[in-house]
Amino acid sequence: MKQPLIRPPTGSRPRSVDADLRRRARAVIPGGMYGHQAAGPLPPEYPQFMRAGRGARIWDVDGNEYVDLMCSYGPVVLGHQHPAVEEAAAAQAELADCQNGPSAVMVDLAELLVRTVGHADWAMFAKNGTDATTTCVTIARAQTGRERILVATGAYHGSAPWCTPRLGGVTAADRVNIGHYTYNDLPSVVAAAAEGPEPAAIVVSPFKHDAGFDQELVDPAFARGLRSLCDRIGAALILDDVRCGFRLHLGSSWEPIGVQPDLSAWSKAIANGHALAAVLGSDRFRESARRIFVTGSFWFSAAPMAAAVATIRALREQDAIATMDRLGRDLRAGIMAQAAARGIEVNYTGPPAMPYLTFLGDRNHEQACAFAAAAMRHGVYLHPRHNWFISAAMTQADLGRALTGTEAAFAAVGEART
Amino acid sequence: MKQPLIRPPTGSRPRSVDADLRRRARAVIPGGMYGHQAAGPLPPEYPQFMRAGRGARIWDVDGNEYVDLMCSYGPVVLGHQHPAVEEAAAAQAELADCQNGPSAVMVDLAELLVRTVGHADWAMFAKNGTDATTTCVTIARAQTGRERILVATGAYHGSAPWCTPRLGGVTAADRVNIGHYTYNDLPSVVAAAAEGPEPAAIVVSPFKHDAGFDQELVDPAFARGLRSLCDRIGAALILDDVRCGFRLHLGSSWEPIGVQPDLSAWSKAIANGHALAAVLGSDRFRESARRIFVTGSFWFSAAPMAAAVATIRALREQDAIATMDRLGRDLRAGIMAQAAARGIEVNYTGPPAMPYLTFLGDRNHEQACAFAAAAMRHGVYLHPRHNWFISAAMTQADLGRALTGTEAAFAAVGEART
Repeated sequence: MKQPLIRPPTGSRPRSVDADLRRRARAVIPGGMYGHQAAGPLPPEYPQFMRAGRGARIWDVDGNEYVDLMCSYGPVVLGHQHPAVEEAAAAQAELADCQNGPSAVMVDLAELLVRTVGHADWAMFAKNGTDATTTCVTIARAQTGRERILVATGAYHGSAPWCTPRLGGVTAADRVNIGHYTYNDLPSVVAAAAEGPEPAAIVVSPFKHDAGFDQELVDPAFARGLRSLCDRIGAALILDDVRCGFRLHLGSSWEPIGVQPDLSAWSKAIANGHALAAVLGSDRFRESARRIFVTGSFWFSAAPMAAAVATIRALREQDAIATMDRLGRDLRAGIMAQAAARGIEVNYTGPPAMPYLTFLGDRNHEQACAFAAAAMRHGVYLHPRHNWFISAAMTQADLGRALTGTEAAFAAVGEART
Repeated sequence: MKQPLIRPPTGSRPRSVDADLRRRARAVIPGGMYGHQAAGPLPPEYPQFMRAGRGARIWDVDGNEYVDLMCSYGPVVLGHQHPAVEEAAAAQAELADCQNGPSAVMVDLAELLVRTVGHADWAMFAKNGTDATTTCVTIARAQTGRERILVATGAYHGSAPWCTPRLGGVTAADRVNIGHYTYNDLPSVVAAAAEGPEPAAIVVSPFKHDAGFDQELVDPAFARGLRSLCDRIGAALILDDVRCGFRLHLGSSWEPIGVQPDLSAWSKAIANGHALAAVLGSDRFRESARRIFVTGSFWFSAAPMAAAVATIRALREQDAIATMDRLGRDLRAGIMAQAAARGIEVNYTGPPAMPYLTFLGDRNHEQACAFAAAAMRHGVYLHPRHNWFISAAMTQADLGRALTGTEAAFAAVGEART
């Protein structure tokens, strides 16, 4: 990699390249940018365009350097430009990527996933997390002959019409077969199941990570209750592991609590940033998975599959899950101490590797935005309305620099309050 | 690229590596393979797994070599491993691919598409053709406040529940807002529009390329009639250019006939095999495009965008569209002469760069399969139930070898008939 231009984090940061790109983008991209990476709703300290990353450090197009606490919204789990992953992807790409049929590495990867994830007897691959969640739902419907599915109120399962959080262009029919329950509230699931025709599936996230809200770990009794309920009413239990998969556990994110879903959706971290998604399932759903028709022009492309094999191997060899957990605990301890020292009341929620910080009584995320803006000015890339992600590439120096930045960010919040 | 093991095309071809991979795949992939690249429904001459490609030559995992007339079902337009495209993608990948925000190349690509495609005032990017067609429909619904869309009977617009050709797991609600018309039959569109609430959009392919059927070029009067109808009833005209885009014309595929859609969907050839899709639209739909929420973890990844910029430049610099048209005409002339010499009645339909061959009175594609199987034995990779694709990388030697293979394939069909 060419060495990016590096500037030390300071209060005054050049933004000329980013400003120029934003001006050009406004002319040729609706709203200047769309989707989860649109910087428009963020404080002005956020660049819209990024230039490069290595390990846990990233640089925007103006050369400003940050410690990365967002990891590309999840995909980067081993750090940017992980050598073994990039070598595997490049070697495969040099041979072939998109062909008339899949490469041998697709079988290697499916076997590796089946060996790695407890409930998985088979694997299918796609490109988006939304492809994976939608395919899980389709398989469940094919299996059960039912149409209705239950999802938690406020949960994000993708941006297809059936699940996108913004309703522009969504029809009533897109949502007519969906019932809602409250996360961690089993009676609400039972009630939602009873409210309409028997459901084909219950879709659930490993923990509650709705954007902009305090996170909530799963109550193991809730997870076990969902499993029992699904068995009793003949519905599929679908675990949406798109955001958490391979960041919390080397199997599925519910293996530590001993609950096995029937189907699970994966993407993001599965190939350390290469475009790939997967559906994993148990033998009971294999025939239904075979009967549906889903495909895509690039779903059989080999380079991201080679990257995924290398990612999963590196996660194991580097003991990356334990590393992220440890780094996350240290970050949490540091941030909680900083808040306490200033008498600032915060909630720091979620698993250590996927934390989220809110401020007590913070209306419209004003304090969160002030905190995030100051953190960005001091070289720490985090998010005011979305959970953060820790990568296994963080060094003690990265962690130290992150905490220096959050210390300055708490100071900024404290000053704004006085 | 390491030199793949090359075997001359002969009647007896080793299949041990492919057979072993198929056996392993059956254990860990539903049905052994899924989607459009499943070799199960094809004659046994088709390998399931491919190893490599360069230019217009490809090799399966057993080292058998073929002239490629499928081009990975469309994405490969400049030939496999096009140097300028692969260099651009690799250089970007070495710097950064999936980050916290897009790279500058996203703006370069959006500007290039707006300059290149007549009706395009803006661009959005995604991963699958299905993402692009679905997003077009969502934008049209957001713009018009209507729900219904019209599609041609038998047309393929992707594999989401609203459009997948196989109904396993699809609900009635997924299809309730869809009306059907007959391609090239304007009165049928008018009738379909009148049959229900006013449509948000009419979705149309550049020509009729339904899998397994003779292809049908668009009647320019039909295209103009659709444009007028959409203007009259306030519906969006959506051109699904996923399969044809950048293979028939450097603008949209309807620019030669002078009809501009409001929205268009692109994927496949846009980045010569790198995973990318695009939605292009006119200014009138910009605000609605801004209002909907669509996104994906890898939709902002930079390497495929760099590949797309290099692809579009190379298409222009190499005069690739004209090359593919000329090669396609030569292939057609050769194949038609071969059929005529043997008194075999065939239909050879579609544009020269995307042809499809059927045999008169061929029930269940039996002759097409016999032809395809023999072609494969003689080193020509084509398809009995799907249109073929010509790439600009075909040399005269490739063309000659393709015609040698099809000559042997016609001989096999003739023998089977006697």
